[in-house]
Amino acid sequence: MLAEIITIGDEILIGQIIDSNSAWMGQQLNKAGIRVKQITSVSDDKQHILSALADAAIRADIILITGGLGPTKDDITKSTLAEYFGVGMIESQPALENVERIFAKYNRPLLNINRLQAQVPSNCEVVENKNGTAPGMWFNAGGKIYVSMPGVPFEMMYMMEEQVIPKLKASFKLPYIIHKTTLTVGEGESFLAERIADIEDALPAHIKLAYLPKLGQVRLRLSGSGDDENILAAEIAEYAAKIVERVGAFVVATDDVPLEKAIMDYMAARGLTLSVAESCTGGYISHLFTQHAGSSKVFLGGAVSYSNQIKEDALGVQHATLEQYGAVSEETVTEMVEGALRNFKSDFAIAVTGIAGPDGGTPDKPVGTVWIAAACGTKTVKKKFTFGNKRQQNIERSATSALFMLNTLLKDVEK
Amino acid sequence: MLAEIITIGDEILIGQIIDSNSAWMGQQLNKAGIRVKQITSVSDDKQHILSALADAAIRADIILITGGLGPTKDDITKSTLAEYFGVGMIESQPALENVERIFAKYNRPLLNINRLQAQVPSNCEVVENKNGTAPGMWFNAGGKIYVSMPGVPFEMMYMMEEQVIPKLKASFKLPYIIHKTTLTVGEGESFLAERIADIEDALPAHIKLAYLPKLGQVRLRLSGSGDDENILAAEIAEYAAKIVERVGAFVVATDDVPLEKAIMDYMAARGLTLSVAESCTGGYISHLFTQHAGSSKVFLGGAVSYSNQIKEDALGVQHATLEQYGAVSEETVTEMVEGALRNFKSDFAIAVTGIAGPDGGTPDKPVGTVWIAAACGTKTVKKKFTFGNKRQQNIERSATSALFMLNTLLKDVEK
Repeated sequence: MLAEIITIGDEILIGQIIDSNSAWMGQQLNKAGIRVKQITSVSDDKQHILSALADAAIRADIILITGGLGPTKDDITKSTLAEYFGVGMIESQPALENVERIFAKYNRPLLNINRLQAQVPSNCEVVENKNGTAPGMWFNAGGKIYVSMPGVPFEMMYMMEEQVIPKLKASFKLPYIIHKTTLTVGEGESFLAERIADIEDALPAHIKLAYLPKLGQVRLRLSGSGDDENILAAEIAEYAAKIVERVGAFVVATDDVPLEKAIMDYMAARGLTLSVAESCTGGYISHLFTQHAGSSKVFLGGAVSYSNQIKEDALGVQHATLEQYGAVSEETVTEMVEGALRNFKSDFAIAVTGIAGPDGGTPDKPVGTVWIAAACGTKTVKKKFTFGNKRQQNIERSATSALFMLNTLLKDVEK
Repeated sequence: MLAEIITIGDEILIGQIIDSNSAWMGQQLNKAGIRVKQITSVSDDKQHILSALADAAIRADIILITGGLGPTKDDITKSTLAEYFGVGMIESQPALENVERIFAKYNRPLLNINRLQAQVPSNCEVVENKNGTAPGMWFNAGGKIYVSMPGVPFEMMYMMEEQVIPKLKASFKLPYIIHKTTLTVGEGESFLAERIADIEDALPAHIKLAYLPKLGQVRLRLSGSGDDENILAAEIAEYAAKIVERVGAFVVATDDVPLEKAIMDYMAARGLTLSVAESCTGGYISHLFTQHAGSSKVFLGGAVSYSNQIKEDALGVQHATLEQYGAVSEETVTEMVEGALRNFKSDFAIAVTGIAGPDGGTPDKPVGTVWIAAACGTKTVKKKFTFGNKRQQNIERSATSALFMLNTLLKDVEK
């Protein structure tokens, strides 16, 4: 069963907002066994919307539309849908009651422009919007299903979860779709591909393998579809196990989780704690950990020691070390990581000091020079990296490398 | 001049990644005077890619393609482009040298699969990829320009900025498009709109005003297009000055810069320094500052005091205070911010402590309860916020509120 998503509105095309709705909708549809064939973003232009609808209906069975349902004049989705289906507009009693309910709740007078929100094409079934005034609309026409929803994320999400997905499941006999992701770190995409070429070649037609690389990490994603959920899950688990067996040295997680989350889960399961001493990453590593719920079990905190003074005061780096070797040196990163362990009383610590750029480089230590250390009570490892000259990338790559070193140390210590 | 963006790869359609590339590309193209007509995301399927290319070429003059250029078998963009243009593949010497350079740099052996990355359709001009092995490709065919780029954001961004945009500008006579943004904080969108209604009404047809609200901030963006750059710039500057004159009390910056950058620029101009004490924001505020070049002039660093122990050890919060009032309290945030000032020797400091969620709430202090303080030697201000129950939003809103409080304190102190 194929679906397409059409987003309507200039704000995506001019880059004012990032379309995060479609990714979320794609996930929900996939879980329900519906594959997304295409996502199309078009402007608030009637002819363009009409042709996008007609094109989507040729390729897919279900067309989900978001956006363009506001009360202002640049929102033309409803009248365009009426024209597409060749019907007129009517006032929907349930939609009007919903608008009235919301205005009463906020004690606002109902303007004419708001009452117009209850107008819908006459062939639609209204989908209730508990979180806003614009009604959703469900159309069954020419053997296809069309659903129009607001672009406001939480209004759309509520409609999808509570009404649209259940109704789609009731309307079709859907196959099961299962994804299984293995997260690897420290080996390039092409080297991984070579190592598992025979496993990939032996995959049946209904199971596919994708390589998703990102700054030193590669996700290996198996995706399959079938009518029997148990058989499919077993098949995919079998191929995933073969892959893990083959490239196990690089596997950090057998779920679709970010690297830092995989490390935290590993540490949480063993009751281990972590602190950080961040110079050039400037809080980014801390943010990676603390964005996840439950991070306080593992992550105690640390110092963002951007100035040398804070390296001395918060981490106990010796003034003489900074004088003699400089802030970006093996000696300093060692004192930073050991200072974090000591001062923050954690089982493990990581430290990063480097020149993120674009300024601050010297012939000896050009922009992109970064020293990273990971340590526990019994072992300290440190390494020098030479990244490029882009600040944001240097920050991200430093973080990924620090996480990778921590991961390796954790596994080494367990042996 | 119209462009379309085609993204290739299942990862967007199944919702594994959010397509942030297209929004960034839309911004860059707009700045160059090129409007994006449609964004289309398609799967790694040859027939589908072929028809997406043909459809885009009917509507637009420039077709930008991202994704599907990796060395593995699921990446079929190159062979599909060759088929689309009816040409064969050749080995590109510059592309091969780039692959060799990168493998030499990382001391890795060059595999056959990597060498294949230098294969390109014979009618293309290679666009150098300084940050990866997959070459970009520029095609001029049937009066249209096609550019294929990797999906890895920083590889694509480098190509766009350094090569594709300049080359597009050289290929077409484009109108000048100028945007001028005024950043305001502390006043709602509709209230701002009311204050400047007459200025907005008086705008000529080729200049438009957009309101871009985001968590307590509103950007007022004037966008104009014209054939004479100087005349257009002068016109827009005139309207921008009128707006600033009218709502000056809320203006933080007259450039399109993030709030924290505007604050840093203000502090740098006055030789002021800043430190932070972050609990529930977990390094996010530090990251906001340190992502910007030159931040070390103002930002000294601070503590990510996730655990109570670190609040005591790094910030000098009294054990009794934590016992009696709890970590999320006026008393604790006050000791945190004053501890940061004292221990990190900065002119100004901000501190945040709260319950980001989803767990950790109590009837007294539900998830979303956050105490924030800003201080300098002569003044400490603190405030309690009650945000919602979404962790990521609570982190972001806490950061914005802390920045806003710091901004207000800076202006108050100067008076």
